[in-house]
Amino acid sequence: MTNTAQSPRLLVVGSVAIDWVITPHAEREQAVGGSATFCSMAASYFAGVRLVGVVGHDFPDQAITDLRAHGVDLQGLEVVPDGLTFRWKGRYHANMNARDTLDTQLNVFANFDPRLPAGYRDTPYLFLANIQPDLQLRVLEQVARPRLVGLDTMNLWIDVARPSLLRVLGKIDVLLVNEEEAMQLSGEHNLVKAARAVQRLGPHAVVVKRGEYGALLFHGDDMFAAPALPLEDVVDPTGAGDAFAGGFMGWLARTDDPHGEQLRTAMIYGSTLASFLVEGFSYDALGALDSSRIRARFERFSRLTDFRRAELR
Amino acid sequence: MTNTAQSPRLLVVGSVAIDWVITPHAEREQAVGGSATFCSMAASYFAGVRLVGVVGHDFPDQAITDLRAHGVDLQGLEVVPDGLTFRWKGRYHANMNARDTLDTQLNVFANFDPRLPAGYRDTPYLFLANIQPDLQLRVLEQVARPRLVGLDTMNLWIDVARPSLLRVLGKIDVLLVNEEEAMQLSGEHNLVKAARAVQRLGPHAVVVKRGEYGALLFHGDDMFAAPALPLEDVVDPTGAGDAFAGGFMGWLARTDDPHGEQLRTAMIYGSTLASFLVEGFSYDALGALDSSRIRARFERFSRLTDFRRAELR
Repeated sequence: MTNTAQSPRLLVVGSVAIDWVITPHAEREQAVGGSATFCSMAASYFAGVRLVGVVGHDFPDQAITDLRAHGVDLQGLEVVPDGLTFRWKGRYHANMNARDTLDTQLNVFANFDPRLPAGYRDTPYLFLANIQPDLQLRVLEQVARPRLVGLDTMNLWIDVARPSLLRVLGKIDVLLVNEEEAMQLSGEHNLVKAARAVQRLGPHAVVVKRGEYGALLFHGDDMFAAPALPLEDVVDPTGAGDAFAGGFMGWLARTDDPHGEQLRTAMIYGSTLASFLVEGFSYDALGALDSSRIRARFERFSRLTDFRRAELR
Repeated sequence: MTNTAQSPRLLVVGSVAIDWVITPHAEREQAVGGSATFCSMAASYFAGVRLVGVVGHDFPDQAITDLRAHGVDLQGLEVVPDGLTFRWKGRYHANMNARDTLDTQLNVFANFDPRLPAGYRDTPYLFLANIQPDLQLRVLEQVARPRLVGLDTMNLWIDVARPSLLRVLGKIDVLLVNEEEAMQLSGEHNLVKAARAVQRLGPHAVVVKRGEYGALLFHGDDMFAAPALPLEDVVDPTGAGDAFAGGFMGWLARTDDPHGEQLRTAMIYGSTLASFLVEGFSYDALGALDSSRIRARFERFSRLTDFRRAELR
């Protein structure tokens, strides 16, 4: 069910990395990571994906093979022969909800200047993963108006590149952020007020990611709450938000109806793909799916949230 | 729709207090509080309630009047004429999710020894709010076997009265705790493992309260996630967990079918009553409800969690 055959519908621009992940239970030194990697692989179960990013000569061939096997078009993945891939090292706390960054080496990512292959210009769905907002703007200049643009960002850019971030927010449709980022961006302590304030900055929909607590969608005046699936064995949460974005954007790209009810369903597919991601290091678990497993887990979300509309008289 | 007419179905044993609540936006010095107060008032919309607690001579007549107006039977509320009511003072942080206790004066609550009026013995539903576990055991000794016993506790008792707590856990049906308490009680960092371990201690159902993130129900092998309603104006969260317990226990007592689907619906009624509670100081908002407002908000929870079961082929 990977969509090698269909014409690519989702363009993903972001980081491709090699992570060193330490958890209370295990450790992996050469874990392929990066927002674009996880997002693309998650989305690949729903739509054809094009990836734009940069790696060095040390990026494993196996990861290239794996992404291609998922139908991800890597024409936009720049390989710098004399450079090293972006590296991140982190350690998770006992409850797996918090982590400390131990080391970051930007390497070739420091000079990332996303240049889209000519054939990518008219991809109808675009996800701008977390990179410097000026680069996100530069990508938007290179595409014809997509049907929908999703965007992620981080506390660093809210802090040091707010004017550029505000410019890009005026040009996108869906912002995906975590709670702290929504509050920092808006200056509001209350999450509903924060999300509404962020909507006034441009995006008609705001997805607030809350990790193990799920995610909230603010769309127009509407609200939707997607739970996270409570899991007994979380192996590595690195990239859960990116897998969420991949499931979310992938579903919208597949159905090509990015409104109302489909946004809600996309939230559940985002949660579904994120729930798989955390069950393995890197994309071990995310990469090994098929439509029947995804369907079955989507159904677990249905059951997790289903209740009888009992009347109080 | 308060149930003054129907025969009392729910017995609530817990604290009755006067709180001094400070939030970033406002302050109330004489706020009627206490777990039994909030729980009873919330449950009163669903079933007749009996309250067992203790207050001093300083407890406001108006609160007695308000509870009676909600049909709460106060025969079990002991008034110590030469004593003072339990007092708690706390200050909420900017985001209203965390708080510091500034002062606690147990007063008459220090010698609370719950004695049930003879007529209370056969109440079919029992909620043991957070009090010392030996006192909870003492209550259980005074009742005929109820249809269902719910219980709340706190980190202090897990710490200093674990043997008594384990004894009482072996005799109850539903435990309502927060995440930290579930983990502390079980020694597990993973919430699912923690809840399953707590189930093995006795209660067939465990409700994990997560504040603004909602609540999870673990029932047998089943899981259910209830969101909290994202609210733009939270006035005072004090007692939200107690109002949740009241809505939850009240619905079970009303329907008298404390299994499967009704437990899920009870979770949503718990969330519904908690969402009202936080909209005012003390029981200002909780006390002013009627069935049509409760129904309308229950429907908001339906809409908040509803999504289309779209097929991935």
